[in-house]
Amino acid sequence: MSNQQVRLKERPIGMTSASTWDITTDDIPEPGPGEFLCKIEYISLDPAMRGWINDVRSYIPPVGLGEVMRAGTCGTVIKSNHPDYKEGDFVVGSLGVQQYAVSDGKFCYKSDTFGLPKEKFLGVLGMPGFTAYFGLLDITNPQEGETLVVSGAAGAVGSVVGQIGKIKGCKVIGIAGGPEKCATVVNDYGFDACIDYKNEDVQQKLKEHCPKGIDIYFDNVGGEILDYCLARIRFKGRISLCGAISQYNSETGPVGPKNYLSLLVNSAKLEGFIVMNYQDRYMEAAKQLGEWMMSGQLKSKETVIEGVDTFPDTFNRLFSGDKLGKLVLKP
Amino acid sequence: MSNQQVRLKERPIGMTSASTWDITTDDIPEPGPGEFLCKIEYISLDPAMRGWINDVRSYIPPVGLGEVMRAGTCGTVIKSNHPDYKEGDFVVGSLGVQQYAVSDGKFCYKSDTFGLPKEKFLGVLGMPGFTAYFGLLDITNPQEGETLVVSGAAGAVGSVVGQIGKIKGCKVIGIAGGPEKCATVVNDYGFDACIDYKNEDVQQKLKEHCPKGIDIYFDNVGGEILDYCLARIRFKGRISLCGAISQYNSETGPVGPKNYLSLLVNSAKLEGFIVMNYQDRYMEAAKQLGEWMMSGQLKSKETVIEGVDTFPDTFNRLFSGDKLGKLVLKP
Repeated sequence: MSNQQVRLKERPIGMTSASTWDITTDDIPEPGPGEFLCKIEYISLDPAMRGWINDVRSYIPPVGLGEVMRAGTCGTVIKSNHPDYKEGDFVVGSLGVQQYAVSDGKFCYKSDTFGLPKEKFLGVLGMPGFTAYFGLLDITNPQEGETLVVSGAAGAVGSVVGQIGKIKGCKVIGIAGGPEKCATVVNDYGFDACIDYKNEDVQQKLKEHCPKGIDIYFDNVGGEILDYCLARIRFKGRISLCGAISQYNSETGPVGPKNYLSLLVNSAKLEGFIVMNYQDRYMEAAKQLGEWMMSGQLKSKETVIEGVDTFPDTFNRLFSGDKLGKLVLKP
Repeated sequence: MSNQQVRLKERPIGMTSASTWDITTDDIPEPGPGEFLCKIEYISLDPAMRGWINDVRSYIPPVGLGEVMRAGTCGTVIKSNHPDYKEGDFVVGSLGVQQYAVSDGKFCYKSDTFGLPKEKFLGVLGMPGFTAYFGLLDITNPQEGETLVVSGAAGAVGSVVGQIGKIKGCKVIGIAGGPEKCATVVNDYGFDACIDYKNEDVQQKLKEHCPKGIDIYFDNVGGEILDYCLARIRFKGRISLCGAISQYNSETGPVGPKNYLSLLVNSAKLEGFIVMNYQDRYMEAAKQLGEWMMSGQLKSKETVIEGVDTFPDTFNRLFSGDKLGKLVLKP
């Protein structure tokens, strides 16, 4: 019985590779007083993790060299000295890329599974779902009849953003990579259309699908797609800045949006946020997203890959696009 | 008795020059039914005018080739067939770069001069003052004790922004070009400090003057100064996007702010606006700015240049920085 872990070995320039990580094996730790031991069942892989290993000022400190890689997880308490957690409890929290973890409960919460697949608590019913919920509703306040464009539309966040947009009465246009993802976005998630950025002229297709312009753009990708959306933003348009996956592995730093003055002439805004800002409202989001799931208005997909030791390769699938919906690791 | 006018001859690439304009002389026009004739006393020169002669989609249509150049003006009614305007009335409005203009009252308003120099109605008590008022108060909602950075701090808009910031209890840091302007910003306008971007290391000085970071940045200039401010923006910081004077004459289009992801990690926003959005609140701004002037809390300077025919050279002073405060032409 041992604990396989992924630790940060060196800070990457550009894409991570096998040499970025150390795969180590340790004893399973013993929980001390006020702690519990969790058997991790799913590990969340998110684009934001790429930012956590850069040595720069950000919303959380960077992962240190030699430390277990930070990641969202869910699992079951198997031993507990913590008054609020007992054996068998289902726990969601930031416990890292490993098979077992000891925690004092910080950055964790207990949940019922409601009989749902547990990996959904790292996707639509977890951080990506909450990110979509607050990043769309709180930052952009969508109104019926408005045109919403979502990049990364087949992803864990984007797919939920678009479905909430439809629930709120928007016309929703997705942008995703490849015909398979675009078909999923339209047929399974119910977007009005989806632009295949790998095979179509995004600028031209935005013109076709958004003839009056774009009221809301939910940006997961940055780069030239952000510029195309800026160019078509409407008066008082809102851009929710959630991510910039096209830029995270850049070796020369991100490229700025050259069309940013479109914000000026259209009295529009570009606003960033991180999901942690809404910590005291997570339960509101979970309840609403759960209700939409139960009523069939909200669908989600997960790609599950097995093995902590596959992490170095699996992590890069986030950036190659080789996955559908939420990417999770089963350790 | 004739009417000297400046007309757009060709669309410039980069800086305007003598060949951009035609200086023409016409008869003084006769007002038709429902119109009045205005003798223009001051013509406003604003950086935004550079945008009006580009053939691109914007908040107003571009000035057409051969047309009198659009400009804010003030002057006196000398003949009227308009029921609301009579001879001797003082009029502020968009009547173009010329000595006389006929108007039906559209884009004009009558005003008392309150015994003040008339050119102030193109500056602190006109569009630049209103721009400062709404662009600061409405877009960024400054709070006591916050740190406000203003670029173009010696200019018609920036100088008012900083003074309103002081009235609202902010720590105010200006950025301007050259020691003379910086001295004016601190000694006359009462900013806490002013960084001379022509002779000082802006990045380093921002660190010194804003040790906790920047809560609000009022951007008149774009370019690398925007990037430096983005890098120091605080949690929930607000950037009011008013202009980008460093980019208006670019021959290759504007450069995007490469540090824009600082908006994401700091949950900050970048919001554009144009003063025309607030048309129905101009009188609120005029009243408040007038009160602050009367009480000595708000100061302003104007640089007055004589002669419609000097327009081609005088206009470029906006970009060379060779003027103090509001630049106006006396035709």
